Amino acid sequence: MSDQPSAADEIMDGVYHALRARGYADLTMQDIADECSKSKSLLHYHYDTKEDLLVAFLDRVITDSERRIAAHADDPPAERLAGFIGWFVFEPGAVDREAFHIALLELRTQGPFNEPIRRQLARSDRLLRGTVVDILESGIEEGVFRDVDVEETAALLVATLDGARTRQITLSRGANAAEGDESNAGGIDPGLNDDAPGTAASADRPEPTYTRAVAEATFRRIVEPLLAEGAEPPSLEAGIGAMTPVDEHDAE
Amino acid sequence: MSDQPSAADEIMDGVYHALRARGYADLTMQDIADECSKSKSLLHYHYDTKEDLLVAFLDRVITDSERRIAAHADDPPAERLAGFIGWFVFEPGAVDREAFHIALLELRTQGPFNEPIRRQLARSDRLLRGTVVDILESGIEEGVFRDVDVEETAALLVATLDGARTRQITLSRGANAAEGDESNAGGIDPGLNDDAPGTAASADRPEPTYTRAVAEATFRRIVEPLLAEGAEPPSLEAGIGAMTPVDEHDAE
Repeated sequence: MSDQPSAADEIMDGVYHALRARGYADLTMQDIADECSKSKSLLHYHYDTKEDLLVAFLDRVITDSERRIAAHADDPPAERLAGFIGWFVFEPGAVDREAFHIALLELRTQGPFNEPIRRQLARSDRLLRGTVVDILESGIEEGVFRDVDVEETAALLVATLDGARTRQITLSRGANAAEGDESNAGGIDPGLNDDAPGTAASADRPEPTYTRAVAEATFRRIVEPLLAEGAEPPSLEAGIGAMTPVDEHDAE
Repeated sequence: MSDQPSAADEIMDGVYHALRARGYADLTMQDIADECSKSKSLLHYHYDTKEDLLVAFLDRVITDSERRIAAHADDPPAERLAGFIGWFVFEPGAVDREAFHIALLELRTQGPFNEPIRRQLARSDRLLRGTVVDILESGIEEGVFRDVDVEETAALLVATLDGARTRQITLSRGANAAEGDESNAGGIDPGLNDDAPGTAASADRPEPTYTRAVAEATFRRIVEPLLAEGAEPPSLEAGIGAMTPVDEHDAE
């Protein structure tokens, strides 16, 4: 492949930036054309409709994830599992990443109404669960994990990580954060009782983001009981950033 | 309260039916007016904007959940936990319930851009996590649960159940199901390998829905390890339907 980006690459970058900036619902072909400095007619030459373009974009995001996962296929299973879980951790201030995933979540709400989108979502689901199944089977074979129900564990882990991400991005102050009001953006709001004054300790120690809090809980409550006796627990810290997320890779 | 529904009740029913039928993104005040047989000007008399109306609707949905949770506050903690988990199980063919939750998910994607919506989402998050914390604290006090980190467990459970629901509704064939193609609607697609022919056994035994598969996994992998020695494991079957969901309550 040449270093020169193809027209398709440039258009896909345009979709990425337009989704991040505008979300999915109100996105127009013109917005995408503006983001990649192409004409709207060129976009329509390659893709009949906005929907075709977004399905092609989903296809590319998932293909990128496939490559990223494949690149780690020979890593030790416990490290791969930590990398998979760490992949879903959004650290505080990951505003661009959150904006992109909000747009993807909007796109996902179209699944029941749009068969080509639904098919991409089903493919992504098979990829994610299949990856966890593969990691667990390798680990069981190598004696690192106990002989658990791999399909059940995969469905549980994928649902948990997806749920944490959905809650973080939808609860985030993100776009409407007031100045000086961002300390808990994307974090778990500790205010189960709104009347309780914050303690000095909690003010000193900001709440973790929702994704991090759930990833830590997942390590303790789901991953550690998976480990065979004597197996070294993997490190979440090492797992975070092991798989550069597609959105951060693409971000300027 | 009288048996006669108030104008506000009728309008909220209209929002519910309009969301289920049309989703959130393209919803107009006229659609809502049509669903509740009111004039658009009456709607605008009560609510300045569509956004105000939807925030009022979210407020009502969450208040209804608060009441539903409060009605079970004195049940035994293990049963309450089973009821909470069962609440998130969408059985096969729950088309109306899925359609409503797809619209709610669309609405949730507006959180980062709309502070009144985000505040309702944060309130819902506190309600859900706070309910699990309350259940766990009661159970620990009564000696039914082990002395676990209740905040961590609550965040883990809520993320897991929300993720399962999000995956079920977005992956569902729902609105675009072809005739004879609904056998796995909302279910976990077993086709991790698309080339593998289905076995007779899997054809006889349909895959559980995503929410049910994850609820069962949650029972085995998160709830059972919570139980104090000798405590009776609660029943997921009993938990399903213990808390009539707000959307089924409102459905005709």
